[in-house]
Amino acid sequence: MQVAVVTFDGFNELDSFISSALINRCRKDGLEAFITTPTPVVTSMNGVEVTGQRPMEFVTEADVVLIGSGVKAREVVADDRLLSRLPLDPSRQLIGAQCSGALVLARLGLLEGMPACTDMKSRAFVEACGVTVVDAPFHAEGNIATAGGCLASQYLATWVITRMLTEDAARAVIDYVAPVGEKQDTVERALRAVHAGAVALR
Amino acid sequence: MQVAVVTFDGFNELDSFISSALINRCRKDGLEAFITTPTPVVTSMNGVEVTGQRPMEFVTEADVVLIGSGVKAREVVADDRLLSRLPLDPSRQLIGAQCSGALVLARLGLLEGMPACTDMKSRAFVEACGVTVVDAPFHAEGNIATAGGCLASQYLATWVITRMLTEDAARAVIDYVAPVGEKQDTVERALRAVHAGAVALR
Repeated sequence: MQVAVVTFDGFNELDSFISSALINRCRKDGLEAFITTPTPVVTSMNGVEVTGQRPMEFVTEADVVLIGSGVKAREVVADDRLLSRLPLDPSRQLIGAQCSGALVLARLGLLEGMPACTDMKSRAFVEACGVTVVDAPFHAEGNIATAGGCLASQYLATWVITRMLTEDAARAVIDYVAPVGEKQDTVERALRAVHAGAVALR
Repeated sequence: MQVAVVTFDGFNELDSFISSALINRCRKDGLEAFITTPTPVVTSMNGVEVTGQRPMEFVTEADVVLIGSGVKAREVVADDRLLSRLPLDPSRQLIGAQCSGALVLARLGLLEGMPACTDMKSRAFVEACGVTVVDAPFHAEGNIATAGGCLASQYLATWVITRMLTEDAARAVIDYVAPVGEKQDTVERALRAVHAGAVALR
């Protein structure tokens, strides 16, 4: 089971690397994430150059596609050629977006009839696409999920791991990465956020 | 004010990128973090190739040095030549370590007479260096701090921002990156962890 973490130029490191690092703790269980980029190398909003692990074409074979966030999201959604490289299919793929990634899903028509989460800065742009933005860190309906606020990327990962493996697997990952002395609280907070936001899991 | 986030081959993305991304939100205030690497390119524990933003020599001019964590920490501390490239000076620099980074500080003699935080896997190795490991996410004495559990890297960043700028600046950064709907709780949790663990701030 393969996860494409779509990462554009100008990306926010938190948004791509928290979800990918958490999901990759499940590699022994056959669930693996790859930084997936439109060009061989992308540069983060803070000037960090990262070599993509998979080309954009990988999104068609991935079981899960997560759209990362960054300072160039509005340029991304204005680029029809770039968007055409994202032929996502929610009938057979789990699809998630972090922060301004919701703009990409909105532009692809994937948020029709459902509310979404995004960050404070992207909110007006997502709403301008006709999508209702909720004041919550995580929302999912069926195979589509959105998360808002960089650190909510741990909730997106929790959802992916729960849906692709088990809730126990997600628990184990959050427990591992949680601050020492705060393991149980962190696990419970993540599961609570995903349960509260996931219509399909209710 | 410059922060070196020392990142070795086999690094954990969470441990280097959470602190660097948080600190870089203060760039407008003159505080800036750079991924600092012993070789031009390092590869993460999950196979992500990252180009260093600064060479190892940068640690001598940095105001703050944070040692990241990774799957090769034990090889790092066995490599005298690599360690000699880390001439840290706690009298004029803030020095922090995330998870197995505590092993590096222990090996450099920087944790003498103080307890430390680290992750569950590194604990036995840090203790074998004669350092007492505490069951807490964060501990600091004077200019030296350690954090345990990948997501505790937000506490290390909170400490750096508070010490180099102000607590209000740290608050604003955590507020920005926190999950939507959990802003206040996340800010309070971070400040509480740093206050509880920072002997010098009490």
